[in-house]
Amino acid sequence: MTIKDIAERCGVSVSTVSRVLNDHPDVSDAVREKVMKVVQEVHYVPNNSARDLVKPQSNTIGLVVRGIGNPFFSQVIHSIEKATREAGYTLVFHQIPSGEDEIAAGASLVQSKKLRGLILLGGCFDYSREQIAVLKVPYVCCTYSNSFGGLKEGTYSSVTINDQKEAYRAVELLIRQGHKKIALLLDSKQDRSISELRYKGYRQALADYDIFFDEELVEETGKFDMESAYEAMRRLIWRRDDFTAAFVIADSMAVAAMKALADEGWHVPEDCSVIAIDGIQMSAYTVPTLTTLVQPSEELGTDSVRILLDMVENKAGNCHMELETSLREGGTVLQNK
Amino acid sequence: MTIKDIAERCGVSVSTVSRVLNDHPDVSDAVREKVMKVVQEVHYVPNNSARDLVKPQSNTIGLVVRGIGNPFFSQVIHSIEKATREAGYTLVFHQIPSGEDEIAAGASLVQSKKLRGLILLGGCFDYSREQIAVLKVPYVCCTYSNSFGGLKEGTYSSVTINDQKEAYRAVELLIRQGHKKIALLLDSKQDRSISELRYKGYRQALADYDIFFDEELVEETGKFDMESAYEAMRRLIWRRDDFTAAFVIADSMAVAAMKALADEGWHVPEDCSVIAIDGIQMSAYTVPTLTTLVQPSEELGTDSVRILLDMVENKAGNCHMELETSLREGGTVLQNK
Repeated sequence: MTIKDIAERCGVSVSTVSRVLNDHPDVSDAVREKVMKVVQEVHYVPNNSARDLVKPQSNTIGLVVRGIGNPFFSQVIHSIEKATREAGYTLVFHQIPSGEDEIAAGASLVQSKKLRGLILLGGCFDYSREQIAVLKVPYVCCTYSNSFGGLKEGTYSSVTINDQKEAYRAVELLIRQGHKKIALLLDSKQDRSISELRYKGYRQALADYDIFFDEELVEETGKFDMESAYEAMRRLIWRRDDFTAAFVIADSMAVAAMKALADEGWHVPEDCSVIAIDGIQMSAYTVPTLTTLVQPSEELGTDSVRILLDMVENKAGNCHMELETSLREGGTVLQNK
Repeated sequence: MTIKDIAERCGVSVSTVSRVLNDHPDVSDAVREKVMKVVQEVHYVPNNSARDLVKPQSNTIGLVVRGIGNPFFSQVIHSIEKATREAGYTLVFHQIPSGEDEIAAGASLVQSKKLRGLILLGGCFDYSREQIAVLKVPYVCCTYSNSFGGLKEGTYSSVTINDQKEAYRAVELLIRQGHKKIALLLDSKQDRSISELRYKGYRQALADYDIFFDEELVEETGKFDMESAYEAMRRLIWRRDDFTAAFVIADSMAVAAMKALADEGWHVPEDCSVIAIDGIQMSAYTVPTLTTLVQPSEELGTDSVRILLDMVENKAGNCHMELETSLREGGTVLQNK
């Protein structure tokens, strides 16, 4: 089946079919509909090889995802994939465990796949200039920035929320409900990453409201996963039973923490209020619904792709975007009596 | 930094470094460790362009995922990605909404990316031979087979559970606990797909145990998502309050259904037992833990990649694998009094 056959079937010219396939505006809706119907019926696939020959470079960008099984990333990945496709580019996808080196993985992908740019989703916050130098194409840090590293602001791009500020906001919300003994569940206090930034926000909020910082109310999970969060919350409960609220740094960990509270006979929110950051779909269906600060997952993906392609196509240089969360009021935060 | 520099730094020959980088067996562990340490320190990326030149084809396969936001797929995608990488291949990733044509998407990807093979994750169960003919490379249907289509068994490959049999097993489990009024929550009774197969399993189990089939206890969600499942369970509750158990065809939908039950004042499992199929991580953290038949997500991915690459490398032909689920006994199934 060629474009000529389709034109014959539709009773239109070959150039009309071509205009429809290339999304040109000067085609009537009726003709477009007629042509697309036949294209779909015969499962026609345009032959791009001739077009590819005259193009100097591939239209492919890469996505390296660091952190497997993070449900928040699924939403961002989908948004990146969609925005890439809509811009006429193809996405090569590579996922690595949290402990691995996303820069080496990205550099290897760039070289073997002749990529024109790279999106790093969920990487380290502390790159050095030497380390990042192996990336020979434009790149965007998605969901994080270089808070702990040595990169100058104009030399890289990022799209992220302000982790410290948003953590502050979550804790402040608990404080305003009268809570003073607020537990914190986090990956690690010193991971030079998201966990450390959110820890800073927690400390800052307590300090600003003159609330005593009680180190024993902070529990590190050690790993960013649900199982570790569940175990950490149980350790916390065995050690202390006097906190009235908990800030958990991520939705998925908060769901696991709520399960631990339930298994130990605590009621949420009556015995303990819970708040988190992320806004994954699943946490809207816990009983009660998790109160959380929702990250703009779609914008995180879309803006990353736009900024990257602007650089790839030499339309703009490096750029940093800070996005805001929005509060989803679930049923897990109660006023402290 | 070249391979020669690394050899000098390590005090070994260039060919030794090459053997380490290419994972040859004839290198001692001590030497391998020494070389890899330097490779990691300097973030060395092997230059494959010369190697690529002599290869007739790319080492790239494609993954088309149909159905966005299905958390069960995340686990399978990760397993496919890992197995592909470990086999020395690269994965190109493409995700489309449930309503779109995965064959056209796959064919387009094969052509533009010169793919050697394709994995289709979550596609239609009713391909015709004409429809599938546009795929010019080996492909594997992952998590589904051609149950409703016209393909001859030897002409395509699949890795999947037996949906009808597993649904039968889930319902049988409820029956053995004394339940007779068993509700069913599913996408659609006639979708020529997973939902229809699981519906058949439900009907068969009722029939085999001489239980009256009550059409009013079957509720279609219309869409495969949590929001639709939540609304469907509410419609069911408003219509009928006499069922003692529910089989929900997927974990994510079951989590939403349990939320609907809770919001209407029902207690799980005291007022209604719930069982599902999938075994996503999140459903292990509901309160109580969801009882479900766990799909072997890792094997689904690994076996799909192995079967595909065996075909790509002409080691084997088309092949069908039927995998089994395993029961996770949570706390959502209770004996009917």
